[in-house]
Amino acid sequence: MLYTAIQDTICALSTPPGTGGIAVIRVSGTDAIVICDKIFVPQKTRKHLHTQPANTVIFGAIRNNNEVMDNVLATVFRAPRSFTGEDTVEISCHGSIYIQQQILQLLIESGARLAQPGEFTKRAFLNGKMDLSQTEAVADLIASTSAGMHKLAMNQMRGGFSNELTQLRTQLLDFTSLIELELDFAEEEVEFADRTQLLTLADNIHRKISRLADSFSVGNVVKNGIPVAIIGKPNTGKSTLLNALLNEERAIVSDIPGTTRDTIEETVYIAGQLFRFIDTAGIRKQAGDHIEALGIKRSFEKAEKAAIILYLFDLTVEDDREDLIATSLWLQNFRKPILMIGTKNDLARRSPIHTSGNVLSIHISCKNPADIERVKDKILSFTQTQSFDPNDVIVTNVRHYEALCKALSAITRVIEGLKNNISGDFLSQDIRECIHHLGEITGEITTDEVLGNIFGRFCIGK
Amino acid sequence: MLYTAIQDTICALSTPPGTGGIAVIRVSGTDAIVICDKIFVPQKTRKHLHTQPANTVIFGAIRNNNEVMDNVLATVFRAPRSFTGEDTVEISCHGSIYIQQQILQLLIESGARLAQPGEFTKRAFLNGKMDLSQTEAVADLIASTSAGMHKLAMNQMRGGFSNELTQLRTQLLDFTSLIELELDFAEEEVEFADRTQLLTLADNIHRKISRLADSFSVGNVVKNGIPVAIIGKPNTGKSTLLNALLNEERAIVSDIPGTTRDTIEETVYIAGQLFRFIDTAGIRKQAGDHIEALGIKRSFEKAEKAAIILYLFDLTVEDDREDLIATSLWLQNFRKPILMIGTKNDLARRSPIHTSGNVLSIHISCKNPADIERVKDKILSFTQTQSFDPNDVIVTNVRHYEALCKALSAITRVIEGLKNNISGDFLSQDIRECIHHLGEITGEITTDEVLGNIFGRFCIGK
Repeated sequence: MLYTAIQDTICALSTPPGTGGIAVIRVSGTDAIVICDKIFVPQKTRKHLHTQPANTVIFGAIRNNNEVMDNVLATVFRAPRSFTGEDTVEISCHGSIYIQQQILQLLIESGARLAQPGEFTKRAFLNGKMDLSQTEAVADLIASTSAGMHKLAMNQMRGGFSNELTQLRTQLLDFTSLIELELDFAEEEVEFADRTQLLTLADNIHRKISRLADSFSVGNVVKNGIPVAIIGKPNTGKSTLLNALLNEERAIVSDIPGTTRDTIEETVYIAGQLFRFIDTAGIRKQAGDHIEALGIKRSFEKAEKAAIILYLFDLTVEDDREDLIATSLWLQNFRKPILMIGTKNDLARRSPIHTSGNVLSIHISCKNPADIERVKDKILSFTQTQSFDPNDVIVTNVRHYEALCKALSAITRVIEGLKNNISGDFLSQDIRECIHHLGEITGEITTDEVLGNIFGRFCIGK
Repeated sequence: MLYTAIQDTICALSTPPGTGGIAVIRVSGTDAIVICDKIFVPQKTRKHLHTQPANTVIFGAIRNNNEVMDNVLATVFRAPRSFTGEDTVEISCHGSIYIQQQILQLLIESGARLAQPGEFTKRAFLNGKMDLSQTEAVADLIASTSAGMHKLAMNQMRGGFSNELTQLRTQLLDFTSLIELELDFAEEEVEFADRTQLLTLADNIHRKISRLADSFSVGNVVKNGIPVAIIGKPNTGKSTLLNALLNEERAIVSDIPGTTRDTIEETVYIAGQLFRFIDTAGIRKQAGDHIEALGIKRSFEKAEKAAIILYLFDLTVEDDREDLIATSLWLQNFRKPILMIGTKNDLARRSPIHTSGNVLSIHISCKNPADIERVKDKILSFTQTQSFDPNDVIVTNVRHYEALCKALSAITRVIEGLKNNISGDFLSQDIRECIHHLGEITGEITTDEVLGNIFGRFCIGK
């Protein structure tokens, strides 16, 4: 990697925007301490910040000419012992928006510039304080809203994933050096590397990368929630059920910005597990004039990515019972848990239909809180197979997943090449490609564009 | 004052709520360091927080049993050198809401309790770190959104007001001890205190309290904005003008929670000065069926508290010109600046009417941004007499104003008493009352109820 040396000093508000008791403004770079000394006057001592020992806090005033802007605490960190690896000053001021803005303005007038999103973390990466996957974990950590998400991000930030990748990389480098040594002596037809041993090594690497790539489905579920599709004919109470599920746990509900445009997605925590409910409302309207079987089929296509399906039917409608049984049998074809929910139980009681296999059936009224609890219990019972060991390294990031898939296909080609006894030249090329893709994850291999994408998603001040 | 000793340790999020780069959790009280030691593990040293020197920062992990919750910075402050005057630890963690909540929960499980709004500042007051008017300035400082508000709060927090009150208090105590000495020797008819001299002193005190009380109108204007009423017949473009004024400066606009219920108030900064526009929309409807003069009169009654009045009339309506001139003459009776604004200039042009005295007149179109600027310039020109010297002590707080008014009436009674040669007993009683009311401001005299009111208005974490 070649980066232009980091010369300038950046500043930003690091605490959440808005008014609060206090706010923290972070200043990082070669001139961080000198710049802060221009506007900070210690209260009791005559010492300036540049004479302060590292990792100490000092009380004083931020001054604009002779006017006191605020009384603040200033903490001094010295390179390389700081988050960014640079000299850093953290100014803890009163949490008024006006004061925050004024102090930032003073810092800019004194020679700092406003940091771009994620620029502090980017500097931590460029200064070798953490690798790229760890910096991405910082963003995930900040965004984490559940125990699972938090744990995955924490493990990744603490380097669990990085360690596995480093081990893989070392093995691959050993591998390729053996083969490349052979190439140097090609004319002498020496075989330094035992092919059987190489195959075992390649298989081993393949299995590890494969496990990491597979973990993405679990990681994705933890990060984005277990997808649950709610389908059924019009007016069977899909939205009513969704609202009932949401209202109960409204405390931590948010919209996922439209990954699919024609469905409504809302996330809810049930017993600490994040669920992403997909209301296939859009389909209902389109399917209105079509034959019902097609309607259901289309819903299923849309709900393809769901891990769990809720199929709603209206107990007050004089449905052909044969039809319903046929539907339940047909639903068994899907290899995922399906809950058939007869709704409006308060208006019409019916005997339950027989279901089996992956299909369960209950009758409920959305007006009855106990019934909503029963639905939740059923949904939770479906997910117990989805549990994961949080100490495992779990991949949660699409970028990592894509790099792992590419590395996997490269190591697969190596294995095939070994079996077909192809030349060391080609083997070496594939191994190097595998190393390259793993290096993309940790940031040994990267481009400004990749960095721009990663850090652009951070908030300013981190 | 007698307060129960502060025994317990409090904790709260001190940075604004929400997600950000970092968040700061503050822990204060006798056991602050011991409690934090239960959950904090330093990374590089084996030192615990209780062995850390004061005012130093240490990097480490917050642990829940064996699970790392977050990597944090912990800053240790020791009594009395902290904001609250107690042992304090500030934990700077990653700005995830989940992490913030988890750390607070761990602290509570370890023996801290969640702080009430303003409780850190309340402790600073109870531990003698600042007086009551200074703690109120902290809240004002955090809420400040303009240079003027900020400066007033900063001056007050730094003790300008407190010093003036302390001086007054000292003078009053000297005063009363002279008189009370006299009372002790009453039988001997000794007159220790020269009555003329006492009168001069009382006059002096009266003048000072009076000046402080008078400053409230300026302080209130800086804090809440200069009130501007917009009045006029229906459909003269009052809301259009208000929107045009607001849109231009929309960046910092907020509603003032209904001080008057039948008017809409919005605040706008014009050239850094806060204005509070009062749209007398409610009046318009009621007045619809009444004779116009009465309508206007009612508007004026409502707009009584405004410092500036904008009177709008519609240029497209064939108004009796004589009527308009009469109105302008009538408006002169009000002893405040009035701007008569002919609207819809783009649809109908008319020659301006002659105005004089406190009344100015312009014709505008709200569609023309240059015309809106002209209105702003006129409004600003009215306010130049309203400017204040920010180095003056200015009272901004209603509670302080009320106490000053009571002190003023007590010292007025003293002056009358001296002139009427009433007995030292009564004089002394009035002086003590004056001291009492001044003491209410700084908190020498206070009650739990008063403290509850003051600190209940703070945010949690301050």
